[in-house]
Amino acid sequence: MEKRSISLNCDMGESFGAWKMGNDALVMPYVHMANIACGFHASDPQVMNETIKLAIKHDVKVGAHPSYPDLQGFGRRSMSLSPDEITNMLIYQVGAIKGLCDSHNKDLSYVKPHGALYNDMLKELSIFEAVVDAVASFGLPLMTLAVPDTQPYLDVADRYDVPLLFEAFADRSYQGNGFLASRDQANAVLTQQVDILNQVLQISRYGKVRTIDGFSISLEADTICVHGDNPEGIMLIKQIRELLDKETRSQ
Amino acid sequence: MEKRSISLNCDMGESFGAWKMGNDALVMPYVHMANIACGFHASDPQVMNETIKLAIKHDVKVGAHPSYPDLQGFGRRSMSLSPDEITNMLIYQVGAIKGLCDSHNKDLSYVKPHGALYNDMLKELSIFEAVVDAVASFGLPLMTLAVPDTQPYLDVADRYDVPLLFEAFADRSYQGNGFLASRDQANAVLTQQVDILNQVLQISRYGKVRTIDGFSISLEADTICVHGDNPEGIMLIKQIRELLDKETRSQ
Amino acid sequence: MEKRSISLNCDMGESFGAWKMGNDALVMPYVHMANIACGFHASDPQVMNETIKLAIKHDVKVGAHPSYPDLQGFGRRSMSLSPDEITNMLIYQVGAIKGLCDSHNKDLSYVKPHGALYNDMLKELSIFEAVVDAVASFGLPLMTLAVPDTQPYLDVADRYDVPLLFEAFADRSYQGNGFLASRDQANAVLTQQVDILNQVLQISRYGKVRTIDGFSISLEADTICVHGDNPEGIMLIKQIRELLDKETRSQ
Amino acid sequence: MEKRSISLNCDMGESFGAWKMGNDALVMPYVHMANIACGFHASDPQVMNETIKLAIKHDVKVGAHPSYPDLQGFGRRSMSLSPDEITNMLIYQVGAIKGLCDSHNKDLSYVKPHGALYNDMLKELSIFEAVVDAVASFGLPLMTLAVPDTQPYLDVADRYDVPLLFEAFADRSYQGNGFLASRDQANAVLTQQVDILNQVLQISRYGKVRTIDGFSISLEADTICVHGDNPEGIMLIKQIRELLDKETRSQ
Repeated sequence: MEKRSISLNCDMGESFGAWKMGNDALVMPYVHMANIACGFHASDPQVMNETIKLAIKHDVKVGAHPSYPDLQGFGRRSMSLSPDEITNMLIYQVGAIKGLCDSHNKDLSYVKPHGALYNDMLKELSIFEAVVDAVASFGLPLMTLAVPDTQPYLDVADRYDVPLLFEAFADRSYQGNGFLASRDQANAVLTQQVDILNQVLQISRYGKVRTIDGFSISLEADTICVHGDNPEGIMLIKQIRELLDKETRSQ
Repeated sequence: MEKRSISLNCDMGESFGAWKMGNDALVMPYVHMANIACGFHASDPQVMNETIKLAIKHDVKVGAHPSYPDLQGFGRRSMSLSPDEITNMLIYQVGAIKGLCDSHNKDLSYVKPHGALYNDMLKELSIFEAVVDAVASFGLPLMTLAVPDTQPYLDVADRYDVPLLFEAFADRSYQGNGFLASRDQANAVLTQQVDILNQVLQISRYGKVRTIDGFSISLEADTICVHGDNPEGIMLIKQIRELLDKETRSQ
Repeated sequence: MEKRSISLNCDMGESFGAWKMGNDALVMPYVHMANIACGFHASDPQVMNETIKLAIKHDVKVGAHPSYPDLQGFGRRSMSLSPDEITNMLIYQVGAIKGLCDSHNKDLSYVKPHGALYNDMLKELSIFEAVVDAVASFGLPLMTLAVPDTQPYLDVADRYDVPLLFEAFADRSYQGNGFLASRDQANAVLTQQVDILNQVLQISRYGKVRTIDGFSISLEADTICVHGDNPEGIMLIKQIRELLDKETRSQ
Repeated sequence: MEKRSISLNCDMGESFGAWKMGNDALVMPYVHMANIACGFHASDPQVMNETIKLAIKHDVKVGAHPSYPDLQGFGRRSMSLSPDEITNMLIYQVGAIKGLCDSHNKDLSYVKPHGALYNDMLKELSIFEAVVDAVASFGLPLMTLAVPDTQPYLDVADRYDVPLLFEAFADRSYQGNGFLASRDQANAVLTQQVDILNQVLQISRYGKVRTIDGFSISLEADTICVHGDNPEGIMLIKQIRELLDKETRSQ
């Protein structure tokens, strides 16, 4: 198997109006892809515009990061929308950020759903199809979770000619089926730097992660998701980037 | 002076969620241009999508009809936004409807601001410029009010290479400066069919309207705005369309 | 068993901004209780204020009709909120309408949750308890569905000293467990006037309804919910009111 | 002239959903009155509830801090609302926070409008009256700006039997008419600790402030507004509180 070069992606543009969130200016230099919120769970046209400019400055790819319409809940509360409602609200959000990208002659490069919508599409193929349907109309790839068995998702995406980008998580524990362990569980989030760097290495070099129960499962990831919520997180992103760059050079 | 063929435009897609407004299906057959709300004062992704499909069915041009963010006030309440905020929120809205148009391979053809934003941009050139700035990034024309002295607006639009489409109103009384008489004034809205048809004829054949004080002023209009809020209005739109078609054939 | 006098309740104040819904002025004369939306799925402070004034004019009791925060979905889309979020957002909404009632020296008389929240609280006792917790702080009764086995709901409500008002539906078919048949099912909604009036008679005189499968189940209802969405509905409400008044007099 | 005991008030509860703002837990011990946002420019039912609990813990008075409906603009963008719209939306917001206060058996003690609405009511008496009208229905005092000539405001408030609480600002420069210097102007905000403490002393001991042009004007303030946005601000609030406590004891 040929090893792939793995990129880093990070959720960005999560401020809203007078409220600041994240450290986009500090994280942007170290990632390859910025998932920018589209105003339904975070961000607003001002924040989106500034974040796109920041991505351009650091030559980082811009992805749309759309969500259920739930600012108060930050898009983390599941909502019962019909597939049709999901498709149209996603086209609305992706179109909105594409408009802002176009105004800077910056390509929009992919779509990654946020929060509860991301989880719901993984659990329910009719929701996954509604998402794929929306993404297809932009001719973009969809970023989704790298799991051991990606075939059901590929089957849907292929029908719409939508490429999938599979992502793994640097600091989250995995269940046996490749889904993330719930944040309610103990040890759901890796907190030790050595554990996180090791997980990145396992993913990038061997295509494997260790589950929360101590088993090893196979995942083929195109990209790794990192979080830069605090100074330690930002330092760690820098180290993860250096590790990945070294892995790539050694191929 | 060569006579121009004048089109009819109408605000559409003004329903929202469970609430219906307007008679889009009845009006669409008679107009050339549908100004579709973009979710900030009316409409939602579902309504926008249905309205675009209706426009396609009747081969009607689709325009973006963006607004201040004010659903409760239907975009009729002025808000103190900075030029930068106006530009970005317009790109957001126009991008959103463009995304939905693209999903149907339907062109988005122009932008017409709604309500208080439309009035504010006419009164304040810095707001007009913020609007033009947004429209420019889509390479679209901007629809604005036909007034006797359009030079100040053309000066701004030319700097951004944005063509202007000038519109007149079939059923509104005019002030001497070519602005619409305030709805608070008596006779601000023409209610007699004969008066409305005559105003359309004056605009299309002679490039003139009579002001509320009884004077005649010159206006060069590319398009006339009609309203289809009730059965009488829809019948009138049919008659206005027939009148304009006849005028065009007789050229 | 002593027969109870049964009241009529109706959802009201469902307009929003420029959008009209319902025929409140025509329905109000015939009902005893107006469930007024609180701005989260419908209504706004203007509409709420006007609807309260209309209820005062016709000496109709005002109830709060709060919802999940979902204007576009009219509160019909279930959302995953924590019990704590539900309690606080209900206190917020009930407090808001109580403020408007107080400004007219009108009592707020009860609370009836709307749409998806109403259904969710019936299915999940932790949600029912979150609702009861909110209602308790106003010292008001909670309106909920009359079902054959109300004990689980009474157990929760008793712990908070919240009286329950049980409602039945004039025009909806019932499942065997006393829940409403889903609107997806054939015959879920009664459309024949004779069937609706008969259902009202069965509920008020005998405490029974016929299920969608043809069985008869027992329900003790304090109030019957009616809908006045169209002219036929309003005529029917008038007839239902006359039927109930006659039943009460004959006791 | 008898010296008054002057209280400290601070805007609180300005977080929203996942976004944090302010240092309420650190500021609360030093102030007498907490102006809690009501969900239209900041806060949500969860945040309001937590902030009320914090005020109870420190025996701080709770005031409603309502606003124009503008989350993205943090209520700082003026909106053209009718007096009727202002009155009803204020009753809605004040009722909402009163509901949450009642659920904790905590009194709601006053109302202080926020941001653009605060400024607009000072400039336009019809807006001031709309605010007073709303506050009157709760039987509460209204907090407004201490200016040299308060008679026009008192005239309106007296007609509605609404007591006024006049506030001065610890760290803002004043214009000659007693209005705050615009934040656009140089020196509009006092940044030196000694200047701020001196301004507090001048207000509390002598009923005077120095204007941005170097003159002295008379203001009778019941309360002084402080801001706790950063660690220095919090230290300063502590010092201001000590200064005021000392002034009160020396009377």
